[in-house]
Amino acid sequence: MKALILGGDGFCGWPTSLHFAANGCEVLIVDNLSRREIMERLSAPSLTPIRPIERRVEAAQDIGNISFKFCDIANDPEQFKAILAGFNADVIVHFAEQRSAPYSMLGGTERSYTVNNNLSGTHNLFSLLVELKQYPHIVHLGTMGVYGYNDDFGEIPEGYLPITVKQTNKDIVIPYPTNPGSIYHMTKCLDHTLMQFYAKNWGFRITDLHQGIVWGTDTDLTASHEDLINRFDYDGEYGTVLNRFILQAQIGHPLTVYGSGGQARAFIHIQDTARCVYLAAGCPPEVGAPIQVFNQISEVHTVGDLARLLHKQTGVDIAYHNNPRKEAAENSLKVSNQGLCSLGFEPICLADNLMAEISATVGKYENRLSRSTIQSRARW
Amino acid sequence: MKALILGGDGFCGWPTSLHFAANGCEVLIVDNLSRREIMERLSAPSLTPIRPIERRVEAAQDIGNISFKFCDIANDPEQFKAILAGFNADVIVHFAEQRSAPYSMLGGTERSYTVNNNLSGTHNLFSLLVELKQYPHIVHLGTMGVYGYNDDFGEIPEGYLPITVKQTNKDIVIPYPTNPGSIYHMTKCLDHTLMQFYAKNWGFRITDLHQGIVWGTDTDLTASHEDLINRFDYDGEYGTVLNRFILQAQIGHPLTVYGSGGQARAFIHIQDTARCVYLAAGCPPEVGAPIQVFNQISEVHTVGDLARLLHKQTGVDIAYHNNPRKEAAENSLKVSNQGLCSLGFEPICLADNLMAEISATVGKYENRLSRSTIQSRARW
Repeated sequence: MKALILGGDGFCGWPTSLHFAANGCEVLIVDNLSRREIMERLSAPSLTPIRPIERRVEAAQDIGNISFKFCDIANDPEQFKAILAGFNADVIVHFAEQRSAPYSMLGGTERSYTVNNNLSGTHNLFSLLVELKQYPHIVHLGTMGVYGYNDDFGEIPEGYLPITVKQTNKDIVIPYPTNPGSIYHMTKCLDHTLMQFYAKNWGFRITDLHQGIVWGTDTDLTASHEDLINRFDYDGEYGTVLNRFILQAQIGHPLTVYGSGGQARAFIHIQDTARCVYLAAGCPPEVGAPIQVFNQISEVHTVGDLARLLHKQTGVDIAYHNNPRKEAAENSLKVSNQGLCSLGFEPICLADNLMAEISATVGKYENRLSRSTIQSRARW
Repeated sequence: MKALILGGDGFCGWPTSLHFAANGCEVLIVDNLSRREIMERLSAPSLTPIRPIERRVEAAQDIGNISFKFCDIANDPEQFKAILAGFNADVIVHFAEQRSAPYSMLGGTERSYTVNNNLSGTHNLFSLLVELKQYPHIVHLGTMGVYGYNDDFGEIPEGYLPITVKQTNKDIVIPYPTNPGSIYHMTKCLDHTLMQFYAKNWGFRITDLHQGIVWGTDTDLTASHEDLINRFDYDGEYGTVLNRFILQAQIGHPLTVYGSGGQARAFIHIQDTARCVYLAAGCPPEVGAPIQVFNQISEVHTVGDLARLLHKQTGVDIAYHNNPRKEAAENSLKVSNQGLCSLGFEPICLADNLMAEISATVGKYENRLSRSTIQSRARW
């Protein structure tokens, strides 16, 4: 299988690229390295000393067939088209979007960057494939955040909601009504509508993976060589909540809970991200079918429960801050992940030894840490 | 009332600007004149000899207070911000989008132009207003086409659909599930989701007018002086169906029906567009409310019925062409327009004398007509 991984240099993209290669795929990573550039700008580099992409790719040759091309898919459609034409992928995995909700809410520049980068990149992908008459399976990284957190709907199904229309009394299934909580989440909703139209009009086979919050840092493959090490973000914009808590606990920094901590969220370990994307890539929907949606999640916890768990393990204090986000103080959450489970996904759940592994990584690179970036700067 | 009219040089924007000015508003038109430029490129100029915007505005001084600023709101956010800051509008009417479905389906260039222009323009508007802390009432021109044509839903309500969620048995109202039929229609769906988030997070008061297919050419105001004349498009991309039929009948060209003619669509006269937008502008929703949606339509007809009506009046033949669009061969359609009616809207319906008026306009400018542009070039 020839797999094009857009955004294959990022936190999820890199381990996924290695996983595809280890499974015998010919992998081409396309990335504009914007994550590295943004982190320079925010003075919040990865805690782990990730290697330049060229060195990563060189080291990865022991694992499988991986190459890299630099391209800004949002702003250089001509080069992007040449890459698509030359590689002729069987599957394209699309990670190449600005993926931080807080970053997208920092200000006007970040709002516009997120909207233009994410929408133009996604649209260029489909529009260029139409021009090239190439119809590979597209696997798009979505987010659980597109659903919003609304008790009226019950357990969150995989993308589609069975309803009765009051006017006609007809029982039908509709795309789940979206309710994004940030500019970033909004762009994923826009992507979904855009992809629905491309699937309907040109018969694209599309899988949208509504992923939970990713935690962890290394996979078996990224841990197999120093040059393959994955990034670890702990700053207020790009650090995900559980990783931030583990780091904070390790360095004795009070755990930063925003609001009451009653927010229930879905989580997945980075190793499972790579596995799930690979499972999904091998299982395209039929031509002419609507978008196939999988909820790519392993388990649900409240933010407060995670903080209390780490407090119990390590004794570190919990600091409750005013919530900078507009969101419900607490919510219930039940999420179906039957689609991926039916393909053989066996979720890794929160376990002491995995958290210890992350703490060890943090300990190893603690000298690279900058405490000033821990607090979130974004206000909703 | 200070009214900023984005896209105020266009087919709907110009008569609306005059209508606002005649009602005592201080009107500032902002436009990048892209419609004039696109029509040059397509070699399909307006049948009517519309005047340069400067001459239009000069002639409009007898009607009221209208001025004009050239700005590309999608690509020049800095200038756009200065204009917003300087004018400080009470209401902003947003017509500034590429508005032709067939044009948006011509090819890759037109797809990307439509997506980038429409989304960036809309997003710049809201993002810049947040930066400026200005919160005028925003009136956005949507389209009936966002609803799709789905018999399961019954009469099309105004933006929101009452349902029962099967899982929870709860009765709730959701945003009407969108089902766009072209890249253009898709951008209006994306706009709507984008605006929902801006309304939710920053409290914008937003009205989305889901407009039917506009017919007619002049309003009382555009007809009051030769320099105020409105544009008349009859080409396969920008000409709307009824206007095209009237022109075809007038020049003895067979009426171009695509498919069976069973497609039912909602229509509105250009005079009513101006009136409805003005009515809506004066009636913003509450701060914190979801987007207010009005269906801006007067009546429903099938394409075939319109063709047969003109055939009966004029004897001109009907030519059935293979439908270049992917759409249902026929559909039923019932649409609520209670919102605008409750504000005093009294629809102008299809009448012989109005069609005769358009025929007279066509007759007057027949020497400017280019027959080669009548056939639609876009294929879905």
